[in-house]
Amino acid sequence: MRTPNAQFMSAEVIPLPNQRATLDPMLALTASGMNAVNSVILERMQSEIPLIPRLAGHLISGGGKRLRPMLTLAGAELVGYQGTRHHKLAAAVEFIHTATLLHDDVVDGSELRRGKAAANIIFGNPATVLVGDFLFSRAFELMTEDGSLKVLKILSHASAVIAEGEVAQLGAQRQLETSEERYLHIIGAKTAALFAAASQISAVVAECGEEQERALEDYGRNLGVAFQLVDDAIDYDSQAAEMGKDQGDDFREGKMTLPVILAYARGSEEERKFWKAAIQGHRTSDEDLGHAIELVRRHNAVDDTRERARHFAQRAIDAISIFPSSKARQAMTEAAHFAVARGY
Amino acid sequence: MRTPNAQFMSAEVIPLPNQRATLDPMLALTASGMNAVNSVILERMQSEIPLIPRLAGHLISGGGKRLRPMLTLAGAELVGYQGTRHHKLAAAVEFIHTATLLHDDVVDGSELRRGKAAANIIFGNPATVLVGDFLFSRAFELMTEDGSLKVLKILSHASAVIAEGEVAQLGAQRQLETSEERYLHIIGAKTAALFAAASQISAVVAECGEEQERALEDYGRNLGVAFQLVDDAIDYDSQAAEMGKDQGDDFREGKMTLPVILAYARGSEEERKFWKAAIQGHRTSDEDLGHAIELVRRHNAVDDTRERARHFAQRAIDAISIFPSSKARQAMTEAAHFAVARGY
Repeated sequence: MRTPNAQFMSAEVIPLPNQRATLDPMLALTASGMNAVNSVILERMQSEIPLIPRLAGHLISGGGKRLRPMLTLAGAELVGYQGTRHHKLAAAVEFIHTATLLHDDVVDGSELRRGKAAANIIFGNPATVLVGDFLFSRAFELMTEDGSLKVLKILSHASAVIAEGEVAQLGAQRQLETSEERYLHIIGAKTAALFAAASQISAVVAECGEEQERALEDYGRNLGVAFQLVDDAIDYDSQAAEMGKDQGDDFREGKMTLPVILAYARGSEEERKFWKAAIQGHRTSDEDLGHAIELVRRHNAVDDTRERARHFAQRAIDAISIFPSSKARQAMTEAAHFAVARGY
Repeated sequence: MRTPNAQFMSAEVIPLPNQRATLDPMLALTASGMNAVNSVILERMQSEIPLIPRLAGHLISGGGKRLRPMLTLAGAELVGYQGTRHHKLAAAVEFIHTATLLHDDVVDGSELRRGKAAANIIFGNPATVLVGDFLFSRAFELMTEDGSLKVLKILSHASAVIAEGEVAQLGAQRQLETSEERYLHIIGAKTAALFAAASQISAVVAECGEEQERALEDYGRNLGVAFQLVDDAIDYDSQAAEMGKDQGDDFREGKMTLPVILAYARGSEEERKFWKAAIQGHRTSDEDLGHAIELVRRHNAVDDTRERARHFAQRAIDAISIFPSSKARQAMTEAAHFAVARGY
């Protein structure tokens, strides 16, 4: 029989994320579909203006995981969809994502993206903005060709929400008073909205009803939050080197991510003084980054950010529990574990 | 009886553009419709993120003529459409246009737009890019609400063509070898495609058949080319001050517009040397601009650019001659004359 104390003890034993979880089952599940999606992507990023496929290709061939279109394909497997309409739509999702990455590079002025020089560094801001616009337009052309007004509604709304999230993030930059709630709201918009939409549209093309649609949307949204949380944790994790983005970018840009929000909230007066200066951009040396990482570690803020991610990953997993057990559900479950375990 | 010589004589007498032509009949024709469109615009540029309507409003309330939505309304009048669906669609057209202007400001680094500080100067490049993305997404949300896949196809394609045109223009910047043909191709994409689409969709909502649709598309496209040609002429016209954009912007940015293409083609060796240096960015003083304007004038390049515009305006007018005479056709005809006469 449990005593209150035993309960407390058991609450102390935080289950570790499944550190051996990989994306492999997801990759296997969607491999042949992704070939079809990649063909659409390559075909539809072409243009009579050679700079367009060159610039788009820099990012598109640049080693991204193509997680979002993979979600559309996995969702289609989960609901037993037999057609091919989702290939074009998954490509449209990837185009929207690529457009936002290109614009992000301009917005952040980042020099690296996935370990390579960012598009704006090679091609300049003007071309990077415009090729983003081109891909965004192409995404809507693809959706229009498919012809589902419901998909168009979902993805045009998601696109507006993403832009709102990015503007909100801009407003929160260098604002130390950003709360965890506000942060979650921002990443819900800038990242999770497209995960949710990518996942949901698989149920829409399969016409499998409101409940399934909602379940897939919830899976995608929670998974997106988990991925973003772990991305943000990795930027302060001394042991992580997976990302290929310059570690410390968020720190130098004064981005208010959860590791900072937690470390600041839990910090001493002196530590808070450091964070104030750092977030305002007065502490950007490697030594300062080292100190920031040390403070984040001291207050368990990376682990706790991962712990928050685990919570959302679990919600993602539970959302699809309405579907019977299958290879697809298993792969999607492991993908959620992977979201949390990355960079360990 | 005409002799060959008399024919030649008559060809010499180039009819002046109708210098008293105004937009007034067009404004009167579309006044009540534009009220409805403006309501949609104001309502749909709102967001929970206050910076979005503030930044969008800076441009949207900034005194633009809203020509493109006006074309949708005028077209609807021309074909006798009785519904209200076109109000949302006209707002979507204006959102697409506003999004491209915001991104243009970032691309060009212009300091002024319509005589006011450009959005990027006040709000910075990051927010300007993102609010452009937001408006672009909103445009597709509006179209999706309307539900016409044909309109979605026309406007998503137009958006992709605009982006291609802008990238092509970027490639032609500081390229003295840009031909008139290439220039016309670029302005056909970056400007005329949206004029064409805005005009065409009025026939689509009215479901009035292929021939009418084509006629309205042709009207819009030719009108768009005429407007752009005259815009480009005004930038070198010592007498024009209508634009509210810094005169000489094109010159300083090394944009290859028709006045320069003509002046260069017709210039002496020495003049060509000047143009080479200027277009490459080595002649940007007020004195240099004065000299450029003088060269353009010497070779009649502003007048001849206007003359080219007159040709396209006439094609626009003739395209809608398949419709019976009406107040709408008269207003659209005068708008085409106005396109040529502006800034005289």
